[in-house]
Amino acid sequence: MSKGLPKRSEDYSLWYNELVKRADLAENSPVRGCMVIKPYGYSIWEKMQAELDRMFKETGHTNAYFPLFIPKSYLSKEASHVEGFAKECAVVTHYRLKNAEDGSGVIVDPEAKLEEELIVRPTSETVIWSTYKNWIQSYRDLPLLVNQWANVVRWEMRTRLFLRTAEFLWQEGHTAHASAQEAMDETVQMMNVYAQFAEEFMALPVVKGRKTENERFAGADETFCIEAMMQDGKALQAGTSHFLGQNFAKAFDVKFATKEGGLEYVWGTSWGVSTRLMGALIMAHSDDNGLVLPPKLAPTQVVIVPIYRGEAELEAISEKAKEIMAELRKKGISVKFDDRDTHKPGWKFAEYELKGVPLRIAMGPRDLENGTIEIARRDTLTKESFTLSEMPVGEKVSSLLEEIQNNIYQKAFDFRAEKTTEVNSWEEFQQVLEEKGGFLSAHWDGTSETEEKIKELTKATIRCIPLNQKEEEGLCVYSGKPSKGRVYFAKAY
Amino acid sequence: MSKGLPKRSEDYSLWYNELVKRADLAENSPVRGCMVIKPYGYSIWEKMQAELDRMFKETGHTNAYFPLFIPKSYLSKEASHVEGFAKECAVVTHYRLKNAEDGSGVIVDPEAKLEEELIVRPTSETVIWSTYKNWIQSYRDLPLLVNQWANVVRWEMRTRLFLRTAEFLWQEGHTAHASAQEAMDETVQMMNVYAQFAEEFMALPVVKGRKTENERFAGADETFCIEAMMQDGKALQAGTSHFLGQNFAKAFDVKFATKEGGLEYVWGTSWGVSTRLMGALIMAHSDDNGLVLPPKLAPTQVVIVPIYRGEAELEAISEKAKEIMAELRKKGISVKFDDRDTHKPGWKFAEYELKGVPLRIAMGPRDLENGTIEIARRDTLTKESFTLSEMPVGEKVSSLLEEIQNNIYQKAFDFRAEKTTEVNSWEEFQQVLEEKGGFLSAHWDGTSETEEKIKELTKATIRCIPLNQKEEEGLCVYSGKPSKGRVYFAKAY
Repeated sequence: MSKGLPKRSEDYSLWYNELVKRADLAENSPVRGCMVIKPYGYSIWEKMQAELDRMFKETGHTNAYFPLFIPKSYLSKEASHVEGFAKECAVVTHYRLKNAEDGSGVIVDPEAKLEEELIVRPTSETVIWSTYKNWIQSYRDLPLLVNQWANVVRWEMRTRLFLRTAEFLWQEGHTAHASAQEAMDETVQMMNVYAQFAEEFMALPVVKGRKTENERFAGADETFCIEAMMQDGKALQAGTSHFLGQNFAKAFDVKFATKEGGLEYVWGTSWGVSTRLMGALIMAHSDDNGLVLPPKLAPTQVVIVPIYRGEAELEAISEKAKEIMAELRKKGISVKFDDRDTHKPGWKFAEYELKGVPLRIAMGPRDLENGTIEIARRDTLTKESFTLSEMPVGEKVSSLLEEIQNNIYQKAFDFRAEKTTEVNSWEEFQQVLEEKGGFLSAHWDGTSETEEKIKELTKATIRCIPLNQKEEEGLCVYSGKPSKGRVYFAKAY
Repeated sequence: MSKGLPKRSEDYSLWYNELVKRADLAENSPVRGCMVIKPYGYSIWEKMQAELDRMFKETGHTNAYFPLFIPKSYLSKEASHVEGFAKECAVVTHYRLKNAEDGSGVIVDPEAKLEEELIVRPTSETVIWSTYKNWIQSYRDLPLLVNQWANVVRWEMRTRLFLRTAEFLWQEGHTAHASAQEAMDETVQMMNVYAQFAEEFMALPVVKGRKTENERFAGADETFCIEAMMQDGKALQAGTSHFLGQNFAKAFDVKFATKEGGLEYVWGTSWGVSTRLMGALIMAHSDDNGLVLPPKLAPTQVVIVPIYRGEAELEAISEKAKEIMAELRKKGISVKFDDRDTHKPGWKFAEYELKGVPLRIAMGPRDLENGTIEIARRDTLTKESFTLSEMPVGEKVSSLLEEIQNNIYQKAFDFRAEKTTEVNSWEEFQQVLEEKGGFLSAHWDGTSETEEKIKELTKATIRCIPLNQKEEEGLCVYSGKPSKGRVYFAKAY
């Protein structure tokens, strides 16, 4: 199965595309820029959704659903928002087809033209704030903590499966608050929820930070983000949380009666992660044999492959395998027994490596005799023979899964550390970016001009101003002007 | 809160609309025909989704995701499908907006016109079967059992919250099989899954049956359905399961290599339920005081309201309430303690009646003294004083919730029985339909002409040919021609 999977070192981009397809994660659809998320890929996304949804609910949010379509005029109501989103959207202009008179098929019925065109939502701030106007009258209605799981469309010209597609799936939280401080606390809280999810479940270390003005969400006063490092030394923005100030409240006239009897505009936040996380997950951990999945997000955590000749051997192995499965399931471990006789064990081994199943157990007649099983780890590609009498197999497997989860995280953490370089001159900046890539921790003078110039010259952008930025006097790597701290530059997805 | 909720007997339709809004289930959005599903309504939908998703997975299905957009030409590939769906769809013709030259806002960029228009999916058979062509080569790839949770758009002219909206949420299963028999078994299985869900969780008795040719899904050889009876005597189609024969396989050229070495077209099914189920749930059980929710789908099953004066009383009641909550939660019962001091108990009682919370527990100082609580049932609006020493409160509440679930079902079952009438002449048909409504079990000659004539004259349609139809010689109520069994007529949503 992994035969012919390109090597990361030779063509990282091709390796990624092929891996996504061959591991049955997603594929391009007949509709330009839209993807089909295949069952295996979707089952990983479902695990992500379940954990995120739980975390949102634990922090007091509830789900709701708002319309797919946004009246064109709504986009214009917030000045910088329309600049950011009007450029790349799908526009519905008609609501009916009819048979062509020449019998050649169906055509758009010119009489069914909408008075006002509808935009397929690229994000839902406008339609949600227009709704919040009716939901919010008094401080008693606040905070309003709502999330939506939905599809959105941004008409991208160059698309890549999961990373950048015209339609993608995501969640978007939209909250309203009585004070700036409370809204800011919410913004930071959700960035922390995303960081916790990335690190604990995706085994993906992230840098938490603020975006520069240039890179902010269109309509936000402040954007927080989590940034991850991929194996090719490029950064990937994995989630954003926006402090919207009173911008959307003013655009949609959402005011509330304060406790003190006044009338004030509401403060807002929005925050989202998308199926792009699938791209991050794949690119951060996988290798030339295929996917490497952190056990906490693996749809199947353990696969058992019998090695046998003839029915009698299979039967004896199956019996033992069933005992083991029962024990694992009692521990909440998902396990599959692959006794298909249409494929050889070697084929199956390669298949489950490609699919990233964290642990593979092989059992042959000799194992049965000796009371052993062979356990292979996907992350290290190592095998060990385990004697079943040594300790309960459920415990053994649990502790191995935990070890794998930690190991994958640590590996990504060490990789990122190795790929993070403090640079102190423009020459060094260019050289490190070119030869090593990764995060460049560098002084910056704080101006958009310098930021844009650096982007133009090198394609590197400021990924974030890290929250743990140290106060440190220095000189901007490009302009030589004074700077008070380092920011992270990188080429990015 | 329920003040002014219209009475069912006076204006059923207004009662429904007002109930949906006041119970915070859904509301109309600024986009014509599209609804906003509010947090409380969405939390009920989430419970439905969770149960259905579990049932789909237990019957071997996996989830996936296919594009929102369908190329216009795809719709035309299956002849009867295009007839059914081309008439009422949202058409994307452009992919960019630009600033109007007069500064008046944004306009559609005429240069960003799509070569081929895209249809916002009204259902996904075409885009899915075009994908299946690549997924299916051999009998080893079958059966393919896929489901999708998604939004779809059908441009309805007259819309009603949940019952008929331009955009709605649903699931659509799309399966592919090696034989007609297997596809038919799947079709019937999914109808049975829907019926089981409706009866066990929604407490909604349904008639299982086949649709007539007229009422079949556009592109299906056979459509099975479940039909429910609402309190106003109108029927509501609550779910459909279609046997597609080889129609879509032929339209999209999906063939498979058989075990015997031949090459054959694949057999297909599709099946779906939507947010329309919310409408059915509301209309089947609720009363003039508000929602009545079956405990198995109620987001909050029990609410505890303290009756107190002053902090000290509240504290003592809270302590006891917390004990009770802990016991209920141990039993998996969802419970909320409403100790808000901004509202009086009477207001809260009305609020939870409106929201359909199955059980309300009230506790005052005298209850504390006596070791009692007052338990009120939403379904019967009856109250009882329960002595806590009598039995564990968890057991008491569990058994009451079960009783309520059964009682709601039984009430709907009896109502339907009362509203089902065998009619044997055209005069009787018209009279019963006019005066009593409900299901009319009548002989029909099996022709589309008669069916259409009856619809034209009375607005009643054939809801289904029931699966448990008795063989019985008779004469068609309208044409007087011979018939071999009765079918169900009704006016319907």
